[in-house]
Amino acid sequence: MDLLKQKIRAEGRVIGTEILNVDSFLNHQVDPHLMQSIGREFASLFADQGITKVITIESSGIAPAIFTGLFLDVPVIFAKKTESRNLDTETYHAAVHSFTRGTEYIIRVSKRYLSADDTILFIDDFLACGRALQGLLDIAGQAGAKVAGAGIVIEKGFQDGGSLIRNMGIRVESLAIIKEMSEEGSSITFSDDTK
Amino acid sequence: MDLLKQKIRAEGRVIGTEILNVDSFLNHQVDPHLMQSIGREFASLFADQGITKVITIESSGIAPAIFTGLFLDVPVIFAKKTESRNLDTETYHAAVHSFTRGTEYIIRVSKRYLSADDTILFIDDFLACGRALQGLLDIAGQAGAKVAGAGIVIEKGFQDGGSLIRNMGIRVESLAIIKEMSEEGSSITFSDDTK
Repeated sequence: MDLLKQKIRAEGRVIGTEILNVDSFLNHQVDPHLMQSIGREFASLFADQGITKVITIESSGIAPAIFTGLFLDVPVIFAKKTESRNLDTETYHAAVHSFTRGTEYIIRVSKRYLSADDTILFIDDFLACGRALQGLLDIAGQAGAKVAGAGIVIEKGFQDGGSLIRNMGIRVESLAIIKEMSEEGSSITFSDDTK
Repeated sequence: MDLLKQKIRAEGRVIGTEILNVDSFLNHQVDPHLMQSIGREFASLFADQGITKVITIESSGIAPAIFTGLFLDVPVIFAKKTESRNLDTETYHAAVHSFTRGTEYIIRVSKRYLSADDTILFIDDFLACGRALQGLLDIAGQAGAKVAGAGIVIEKGFQDGGSLIRNMGIRVESLAIIKEMSEEGSSITFSDDTK
């Protein structure tokens, strides 16, 4: 997706060789028009797959997911990361290790909103080691729901999450796949730069 | 906003006399078409106020905020609740007491994205005791930014947050104001039911 790659090149800040800070338009400050374009793209890629629910994890996945749900005309669920008094006690849940935060957290989805009748599209802002997506797949499995695939805004192609999830037979559509990056000059190479 | 009030009556689950669970369309599962209508309404209410940024707090405020930003054609910032390695160390921050969770948390906004040149519209899913909004006002004050007002999806009119914030001279537009509610039969009375 050219618009996204231009934005990453213009505003992404590379820290070391593994961290890409895109909090000017995706993770903290959000560009709603770009999110709308991203949602339209995911909806187009997964049209006619019989999707009944879009699922993401709070918080950075919500903006792209909500537009995907809008264009697919289905509800969006954001899995919760923390135990809240207001969340149903009857939940599907899975543990996820976060490399960014260096901690493990629990993601939860209420059993009210997910069942064996559902066909799910996962949406997330980043795919790196794939742990968050594995947690969501675990939850889909608990519900007996069908998984249509995953729409990822930015995939770190130099980490193993993408191949890990694809090797499980899951369709993964990433709008930008980073082949490598370097802090010096904030240089970023996308996997399809030679195309 | 009639569409919202119909949805609250149809799907809201009252717990005791103070908790309204709307996680079928706002707080966990989200109705993207309703969020779009809500965003359009907030943008209309605050049009011509010179708004440069929409600000919310992760996570449930993001969906209504992103559509508000879309229709106002401005960026959306979601204040972060937890310390993350990827967030700038240079932040505005404020402490917020959560009655829902029974804890205090810190909200943060990077100094990169908020300045004295900004005019802010706050968006949040609920207004109850007003602590989250006070935290955001604190952050706006630190940045020297102008506050155009606050757009609230559901205000608990029987709690004091609304009058507290309005008495500070802040314009608050709530799309549904609950006057009272009761667990028995999940009955909900809105403040304008007699209109």
